[in-house]
Amino acid sequence: MAHTVREKSKLIARVRRIRGQMEAVERALESEKGCSDVLQLIASVRGAMNGLTAEVMEDHIRFHVVDPAREADPDRAKGAEELIDVVRTYLK
Amino acid sequence: MAHTVREKSKLIARVRRIRGQMEAVERALESEKGCSDVLQLIASVRGAMNGLTAEVMEDHIRFHVVDPAREADPDRAKGAEELIDVVRTYLK
Amino acid sequence: MAHTVREKSKLIARVRRIRGQMEAVERALESEKGCSDVLQLIASVRGAMNGLTAEVMEDHIRFHVVDPAREADPDRAKGAEELIDVVRTYLK
Amino acid sequence: MAHTVREKSKLIARVRRIRGQMEAVERALESEKGCSDVLQLIASVRGAMNGLTAEVMEDHIRFHVVDPAREADPDRAKGAEELIDVVRTYLK
Repeated sequence: MAHTVREKSKLIARVRRIRGQMEAVERALESEKGCSDVLQLIASVRGAMNGLTAEVMEDHIRFHVVDPAREADPDRAKGAEELIDVVRTYLK
Repeated sequence: MAHTVREKSKLIARVRRIRGQMEAVERALESEKGCSDVLQLIASVRGAMNGLTAEVMEDHIRFHVVDPAREADPDRAKGAEELIDVVRTYLK
Repeated sequence: MAHTVREKSKLIARVRRIRGQMEAVERALESEKGCSDVLQLIASVRGAMNGLTAEVMEDHIRFHVVDPAREADPDRAKGAEELIDVVRTYLK
Repeated sequence: MAHTVREKSKLIARVRRIRGQMEAVERALESEKGCSDVLQLIASVRGAMNGLTAEVMEDHIRFHVVDPAREADPDRAKGAEELIDVVRTYLK
Protein backbone atom coordinates (compact mmCIF):
# COMPACT_ATOMS: atom_id res chain seq x y z
CA MET A 1 0.00 0.00 0.00
CA ALA A 2 0.98 3.68 -0.15
CA HIS A 3 2.78 3.35 -3.42
CA THR A 4 4.40 6.70 -3.66
CA VAL A 5 5.36 9.14 -0.93
CA ARG A 6 2.78 11.61 -2.22
CA GLU A 7 -0.05 9.07 -2.31
CA LYS A 8 0.86 7.82 1.15
CA SER A 9 0.70 11.34 2.61
CA LYS A 10 -2.64 12.04 0.93
CA LEU A 11 -4.19 8.87 2.34
CA ILE A 12 -2.81 9.48 5.84
CA ALA A 13 -4.15 13.05 5.74
CA ARG A 14 -7.60 11.63 4.86
CA VAL A 15 -7.45 9.14 7.74
CA ARG A 16 -6.46 11.90 10.18
CA ARG A 17 -9.39 14.05 9.06
CA ILE A 18 -11.72 11.12 9.70
CA ARG A 19 -10.16 10.61 13.16
CA GLY A 20 -10.87 14.30 13.86
CA GLN A 21 -14.48 13.80 12.72
CA MET A 22 -14.84 10.82 15.07
CA GLU A 23 -13.59 12.99 17.95
CA ALA A 24 -16.35 15.47 17.07
CA VAL A 25 -18.90 12.61 17.28
CA GLU A 26 -17.53 11.68 20.71
CA ARG A 27 -17.69 15.29 21.93
CA ALA A 28 -21.27 15.61 20.63
CA LEU A 29 -22.26 12.51 22.62
CA GLU A 30 -20.40 13.71 25.74
CA SER A 31 -22.09 17.12 25.65
CA GLU A 32 -25.49 15.51 24.97
CA LYS A 33 -26.10 17.24 21.66
CA GLY A 34 -29.35 16.33 19.89
CA CYS A 35 -29.62 13.02 18.00
CA SER A 36 -30.01 14.86 14.70
CA ASP A 37 -26.69 16.64 15.20
CA VAL A 38 -25.00 13.37 16.11
CA LEU A 39 -26.48 11.61 13.08
CA GLN A 40 -25.40 14.51 10.85
CA LEU A 41 -21.82 14.14 12.11
CA ILE A 42 -21.98 10.37 11.58
CA ALA A 43 -23.25 10.92 8.02
CA SER A 44 -20.15 13.08 7.32
CA VAL A 45 -17.86 10.33 8.60
CA ARG A 46 -19.61 7.82 6.35
CA GLY A 47 -19.12 10.09 3.34
CA ALA A 48 -15.44 10.55 4.21
CA MET A 49 -15.01 6.76 4.65
CA ASN A 50 -16.49 6.25 1.16
CA GLY A 51 -13.98 8.72 -0.24
CA LEU A 52 -11.09 6.94 1.52
CA THR A 53 -12.29 3.53 0.31
CA ALA A 54 -12.56 4.74 -3.28
CA GLU A 55 -9.06 6.25 -3.16
CA VAL A 56 -7.46 3.10 -1.74
CA MET A 57 -9.22 0.94 -4.36
CA GLU A 58 -8.17 3.30 -7.14
CA ASP A 59 -4.55 3.17 -5.93
CA HIS A 60 -4.74 -0.62 -5.82
CA ILE A 61 -5.96 -0.72 -9.43
CA ARG A 62 -3.26 1.72 -10.62
CA PHE A 63 -0.32 0.20 -8.73
CA HIS A 64 -1.15 -3.53 -8.63
CA VAL A 65 -3.43 -4.25 -11.57
CA VAL A 66 -3.33 -1.83 -14.52
CA ASP A 67 -2.40 1.83 -14.52
CA PRO A 68 -4.32 3.40 -17.43
CA ALA A 69 -1.65 6.11 -17.75
CA ARG A 70 1.20 3.63 -18.33
CA GLU A 71 -0.47 0.61 -19.91
CA ALA A 72 0.77 -0.32 -23.41
CA ASP A 73 -2.36 -2.32 -24.34
CA PRO A 74 -5.08 0.27 -25.16
CA ASP A 75 -7.98 -2.13 -24.37
CA ARG A 76 -6.63 -2.84 -20.89
CA ALA A 77 -5.96 0.87 -20.34
CA LYS A 78 -9.58 1.64 -21.27
CA GLY A 79 -10.90 -1.24 -19.12
CA ALA A 80 -8.95 0.00 -16.07
CA GLU A 81 -10.06 3.60 -16.66
CA GLU A 82 -13.71 2.48 -16.76
CA LEU A 83 -13.22 0.39 -13.63
CA ILE A 84 -11.84 3.39 -11.72
CA ASP A 85 -14.86 5.45 -12.85
CA VAL A 86 -17.20 2.70 -11.66
CA VAL A 87 -15.51 2.49 -8.24
CA ARG A 88 -15.90 6.26 -7.87
CA THR A 89 -19.58 6.18 -8.93
CA TYR A 90 -20.46 3.37 -6.57
CA LEU A 91 -18.66 4.83 -3.55
CA LYS A 92 -19.69 8.44 -4.06
CA MET B 1 -28.82 12.58 22.64
CA ALA B 2 -27.44 10.05 25.15
CA HIS B 3 -30.65 9.67 27.00
CA THR B 4 -29.60 7.65 29.92
CA VAL B 5 -26.22 7.36 31.54
CA ARG B 6 -25.99 3.72 30.46
CA GLU B 7 -26.91 4.45 26.83
CA LYS B 8 -24.45 7.35 26.72
CA SER B 9 -21.60 5.14 27.98
CA LYS B 10 -22.43 2.39 25.46
CA LEU B 11 -22.39 4.84 22.54
CA ILE B 12 -19.15 6.48 23.66
CA ALA B 13 -17.54 3.05 24.05
CA ARG B 14 -18.57 2.26 20.44
CA VAL B 15 -17.10 5.56 19.18
CA ARG B 16 -13.82 4.87 21.00
CA ARG B 17 -13.57 1.41 19.46
CA ILE B 18 -14.03 2.98 16.01
CA ARG B 19 -11.34 5.58 16.82
CA GLY B 20 -9.02 2.69 17.71
CA GLN B 21 -9.87 0.99 14.40
CA MET B 22 -9.05 4.21 12.50
CA GLU B 23 -5.66 4.31 14.26
CA ALA B 24 -5.07 0.77 12.98
CA VAL B 25 -5.87 1.99 9.44
CA GLU B 26 -3.36 4.82 9.87
CA ARG B 27 -0.65 2.45 11.17
CA ALA B 28 -1.31 0.07 8.26
CA LEU B 29 -0.78 2.94 5.81
CA GLU B 30 2.34 4.17 7.66
CA SER B 31 3.92 0.73 7.67
CA GLU B 32 2.99 0.19 4.00
CA LYS B 33 0.85 -2.87 4.57
CA GLY B 34 -0.78 -4.36 1.45
CA CYS B 35 -3.89 -2.72 -0.04
CA SER B 36 -5.99 -5.77 0.78
CA ASP B 37 -5.10 -5.51 4.46
CA VAL B 38 -5.90 -1.80 4.46
CA LEU B 39 -9.24 -2.40 2.69
CA GLN B 40 -10.05 -5.17 5.16
CA LEU B 41 -9.48 -2.76 8.07
CA ILE B 42 -11.59 -0.10 6.33
CA ALA B 43 -14.40 -2.66 5.84
CA SER B 44 -14.39 -3.29 9.62
CA VAL B 45 -14.70 0.43 10.32
CA ARG B 46 -17.63 0.64 7.88
CA GLY B 47 -19.37 -2.23 9.65
CA ALA B 48 -18.79 -0.60 13.04
CA MET B 49 -20.09 2.75 11.72
CA ASN B 50 -23.28 0.98 10.56
CA GLY B 51 -23.72 -0.47 14.03
CA LEU B 52 -23.23 2.95 15.63
CA THR B 53 -25.68 4.59 13.21
CA ALA B 54 -28.33 1.94 13.88
CA GLU B 55 -27.93 2.35 17.65
CA VAL B 56 -28.21 6.15 17.56
CA MET B 57 -31.31 5.92 15.30
CA GLU B 58 -32.87 3.30 17.59
CA ASP B 59 -32.23 5.53 20.64
CA HIS B 60 -33.76 8.47 18.79
CA ILE B 61 -36.91 6.42 18.06
CA ARG B 62 -37.18 5.18 21.66
CA PHE B 63 -36.49 8.49 23.39
CA HIS B 64 -37.93 11.09 21.03
CA VAL B 65 -40.62 9.36 19.00
CA VAL B 66 -42.21 6.21 20.45
CA ASP B 67 -40.70 3.74 22.90
CA PRO B 68 -42.41 0.40 22.19
CA ALA B 69 -41.78 -0.68 25.80
CA ARG B 70 -43.69 2.25 27.31
CA GLU B 71 -46.26 3.21 24.67
CA ALA B 72 -49.92 2.93 25.74
CA ASP B 73 -51.29 2.72 22.16
CA PRO B 74 -50.60 -0.86 20.97
CA ASP B 75 -50.64 0.08 17.24
CA ARG B 76 -47.99 2.76 17.76
CA ALA B 77 -45.93 0.41 19.91
CA LYS B 78 -46.04 -2.21 17.13
CA GLY B 79 -45.24 0.42 14.45
CA ALA B 80 -42.20 1.63 16.41
CA GLU B 81 -41.01 -1.93 17.08
CA GLU B 82 -41.21 -2.71 13.33
CA LEU B 83 -39.39 0.52 12.52
CA ILE B 84 -36.51 -0.39 14.85
CA ASP B 85 -36.29 -3.83 13.19
CA VAL B 86 -36.19 -2.19 9.76
CA VAL B 87 -33.41 0.22 10.79
CA ARG B 88 -31.38 -2.75 12.06
CA THR B 89 -31.99 -4.76 8.87
CA TYR B 90 -31.01 -1.92 6.58
CA LEU B 91 -27.89 -0.92 8.50
CA LYS B 92 -26.62 -4.42 9.22
CA MET C 1 -49.05 -0.40 3.61
CA ALA C 2 -50.28 2.10 0.99
CA HIS C 3 -52.17 4.18 3.46
CA THR C 4 -54.01 6.46 1.19
CA VAL C 5 -55.04 5.98 -2.40
CA ARG C 6 -52.69 8.75 -3.46
CA GLU C 7 -49.69 7.34 -1.58
CA LYS C 8 -50.41 3.85 -2.94
CA SER C 9 -50.46 5.11 -6.53
CA LYS C 10 -47.21 7.04 -6.05
CA LEU C 11 -45.41 4.00 -4.66
CA ILE C 12 -46.72 1.70 -7.39
CA ALA C 13 -45.64 4.23 -10.02
CA ARG C 14 -42.13 4.19 -8.49
CA VAL C 15 -42.02 0.37 -8.55
CA ARG C 16 -43.11 0.31 -12.20
CA ARG C 17 -40.38 2.76 -13.15
CA ILE C 18 -37.82 0.51 -11.46
CA ARG C 19 -39.25 -2.52 -13.32
CA GLY C 20 -38.76 -0.56 -16.56
CA GLN C 21 -35.17 0.22 -15.56
CA MET C 22 -34.53 -3.50 -14.90
CA GLU C 23 -35.85 -4.29 -18.39
CA ALA C 24 -33.30 -1.80 -19.73
CA VAL C 25 -30.55 -3.67 -17.83
CA GLU C 26 -31.74 -6.95 -19.38
CA ARG C 27 -31.78 -5.45 -22.90
CA ALA C 28 -28.28 -4.02 -22.37
CA LEU C 29 -27.02 -7.49 -21.42
CA GLU C 30 -28.87 -9.15 -24.33
CA SER C 31 -27.42 -6.71 -26.86
CA GLU C 32 -23.94 -7.03 -25.32
CA LYS C 33 -23.56 -3.39 -24.41
CA GLY C 34 -20.31 -2.43 -22.66
CA CYS C 35 -19.86 -3.20 -18.96
CA SER C 36 -19.71 0.52 -18.14
CA ASP C 37 -23.12 1.09 -19.72
CA VAL C 38 -24.56 -1.88 -17.82
CA LEU C 39 -23.05 -0.67 -14.53
CA GLN C 40 -24.39 2.83 -15.19
CA LEU C 41 -27.91 1.40 -15.64
CA ILE C 42 -27.51 -0.68 -12.48
CA ALA C 43 -26.39 2.43 -10.55
CA SER C 44 -29.65 4.16 -11.61
CA VAL C 45 -31.70 1.22 -10.34
CA ARG C 46 -29.84 1.36 -7.02
CA GLY C 47 -30.58 5.08 -6.70
CA ALA C 48 -34.25 4.49 -7.50
CA MET C 49 -34.42 1.63 -4.97
CA ASN C 50 -33.01 3.98 -2.30
CA GLY C 51 -35.74 6.51 -3.13
CA LEU C 52 -38.43 3.80 -2.90
CA THR C 53 -37.05 2.53 0.43
CA ALA C 54 -36.97 6.05 1.91
CA GLU C 55 -40.55 6.70 0.79
CA VAL C 56 -41.89 3.44 2.26
CA MET C 57 -40.06 4.09 5.55
CA GLU C 58 -41.36 7.66 5.67
CA ASP C 59 -44.93 6.43 5.07
CA HIS C 60 -44.47 3.84 7.82
CA ILE C 61 -43.37 6.56 10.26
CA ARG C 62 -46.26 8.86 9.30
CA PHE C 63 -49.03 6.24 9.28
CA HIS C 64 -47.94 3.77 11.97
CA VAL C 65 -45.71 5.66 14.38
CA VAL C 66 -46.06 9.46 14.54
CA ASP C 67 -47.25 11.82 11.83
CA PRO C 68 -45.52 15.15 12.54
CA ALA C 69 -48.39 16.99 10.80
CA ARG C 70 -51.07 15.59 13.12
CA GLU C 71 -49.25 14.89 16.39
CA ALA C 72 -50.52 16.81 19.45
CA ASP C 73 -47.29 16.40 21.46
CA PRO C 74 -44.78 18.90 19.99
CA ASP C 75 -41.70 16.95 21.16
CA ARG C 76 -42.89 13.78 19.43
CA ALA C 77 -43.80 15.77 16.32
CA LYS C 78 -40.27 17.23 16.24
CA GLY C 79 -38.69 13.80 16.92
CA ALA C 80 -40.63 12.22 14.04
CA GLU C 81 -39.79 15.10 11.70
CA GLU C 82 -36.09 14.69 12.49
CA LEU C 83 -36.35 10.94 11.99
CA ILE C 84 -37.86 11.40 8.52
CA ASP C 85 -35.03 13.82 7.63
CA VAL C 86 -32.46 11.28 8.84
CA VAL C 87 -34.02 8.46 6.77
CA ARG C 88 -33.88 10.71 3.68
CA THR C 89 -30.25 11.71 4.35
CA TYR C 90 -29.10 8.14 4.84
CA LEU C 91 -30.91 6.73 1.82
CA LYS C 92 -30.14 9.56 -0.59
CA MET D 1 -20.49 -7.01 -21.69
CA ALA D 2 -21.64 -10.62 -21.47
CA HIS D 3 -18.34 -12.03 -22.49
CA THR D 4 -19.15 -15.64 -22.89
CA VAL D 5 -22.46 -17.30 -23.63
CA ARG D 6 -22.44 -18.89 -20.20
CA GLU D 7 -21.70 -15.64 -18.35
CA LYS D 8 -24.36 -13.82 -20.38
CA SER D 9 -27.01 -16.40 -19.46
CA LYS D 10 -26.06 -16.29 -15.78
CA LEU D 11 -26.37 -12.51 -15.64
CA ILE D 12 -29.69 -12.49 -17.52
CA ALA D 13 -31.05 -15.14 -15.15
CA ARG D 14 -30.06 -12.90 -12.21
CA VAL D 15 -31.79 -9.89 -13.77
CA ARG D 16 -34.98 -11.92 -14.39
CA ARG D 17 -35.03 -13.06 -10.77
CA ILE D 18 -34.78 -9.43 -9.66
CA ARG D 19 -37.61 -8.50 -12.06
CA GLY D 20 -39.71 -11.23 -10.41
CA GLN D 21 -38.84 -9.83 -6.98
CA MET D 22 -39.95 -6.35 -8.10
CA GLU D 23 -43.28 -7.83 -9.23
CA ALA D 24 -43.67 -9.25 -5.72
CA VAL D 25 -43.06 -5.74 -4.29
CA GLU D 26 -45.74 -4.37 -6.61
CA ARG D 27 -48.22 -7.10 -5.63
CA ALA D 28 -47.51 -6.45 -1.93
CA LEU D 29 -48.31 -2.76 -2.43
CA GLU D 30 -51.45 -3.54 -4.49
CA SER D 31 -52.79 -5.93 -1.86
CA GLU D 32 -51.94 -3.48 0.95
CA LYS D 33 -49.56 -5.78 2.79
CA GLY D 34 -47.93 -4.33 5.90
CA CYS D 35 -44.99 -1.92 5.57
CA SER D 36 -42.66 -4.41 7.24
CA ASP D 37 -43.46 -7.04 4.63
CA VAL D 38 -42.91 -4.52 1.84
CA LEU D 39 -39.60 -3.37 3.36
CA GLN D 40 -38.52 -6.99 3.77
CA LEU D 41 -39.17 -7.61 0.05
CA ILE D 42 -37.31 -4.41 -0.85
CA ALA D 43 -34.35 -5.53 1.30
CA SER D 44 -34.19 -8.77 -0.73
CA VAL D 45 -34.12 -6.82 -3.99
CA ARG D 46 -31.29 -4.66 -2.63
CA GLY D 47 -29.30 -7.77 -1.69
CA ALA D 48 -29.89 -9.26 -5.14
CA MET D 49 -28.85 -5.97 -6.82
CA ASN D 50 -25.60 -6.05 -4.83
CA GLY D 51 -24.95 -9.57 -6.06
CA LEU D 52 -25.62 -8.53 -9.67
CA THR D 53 -23.38 -5.47 -9.35
CA ALA D 54 -20.53 -7.54 -7.91
CA GLU D 55 -20.83 -10.11 -10.71
CA VAL D 56 -20.82 -7.50 -13.49
CA MET D 57 -17.78 -5.77 -11.93
CA GLU D 58 -15.98 -9.09 -11.55
CA ASP D 59 -16.67 -9.93 -15.20
CA HIS D 60 -15.40 -6.51 -16.21
CA ILE D 61 -12.15 -7.09 -14.31
CA ARG D 62 -11.68 -10.59 -15.78
CA PHE D 63 -12.55 -9.75 -19.38
CA HIS D 64 -11.36 -6.15 -19.79
CA VAL D 65 -8.62 -5.59 -17.23
CA VAL D 66 -6.77 -8.66 -15.91
CA ASP D 67 -8.03 -12.23 -15.65
CA PRO D 68 -6.13 -13.77 -12.73
CA ALA D 69 -6.56 -17.23 -14.28
CA ARG D 70 -4.81 -16.30 -17.54
CA GLU D 71 -2.41 -13.52 -16.58
CA ALA D 72 1.30 -14.24 -17.21
CA ASP D 73 2.57 -11.63 -14.72
CA PRO D 74 2.10 -13.14 -11.23
CA ASP D 75 1.96 -9.73 -9.46
CA ARG D 76 -0.85 -8.53 -11.70
CA ALA D 77 -2.67 -11.84 -11.32
CA LYS D 78 -2.47 -11.48 -7.53
CA GLY D 79 -3.53 -7.80 -7.68
CA ALA D 80 -6.59 -8.66 -9.79
CA GLU D 81 -7.50 -11.60 -7.54
CA GLU D 82 -7.37 -9.30 -4.49
CA LEU D 83 -9.44 -6.69 -6.29
CA ILE D 84 -12.17 -9.24 -7.07
CA ASP D 85 -12.19 -10.28 -3.40
CA VAL D 86 -12.52 -6.65 -2.34
CA VAL D 87 -15.43 -6.02 -4.74
CA ARG D 88 -17.21 -9.07 -3.30
CA THR D 89 -16.57 -7.98 0.31
CA TYR D 90 -17.82 -4.45 -0.29
CA LEU D 91 -20.95 -5.46 -2.19
CA LYS D 92 -21.92 -8.41 -0.04
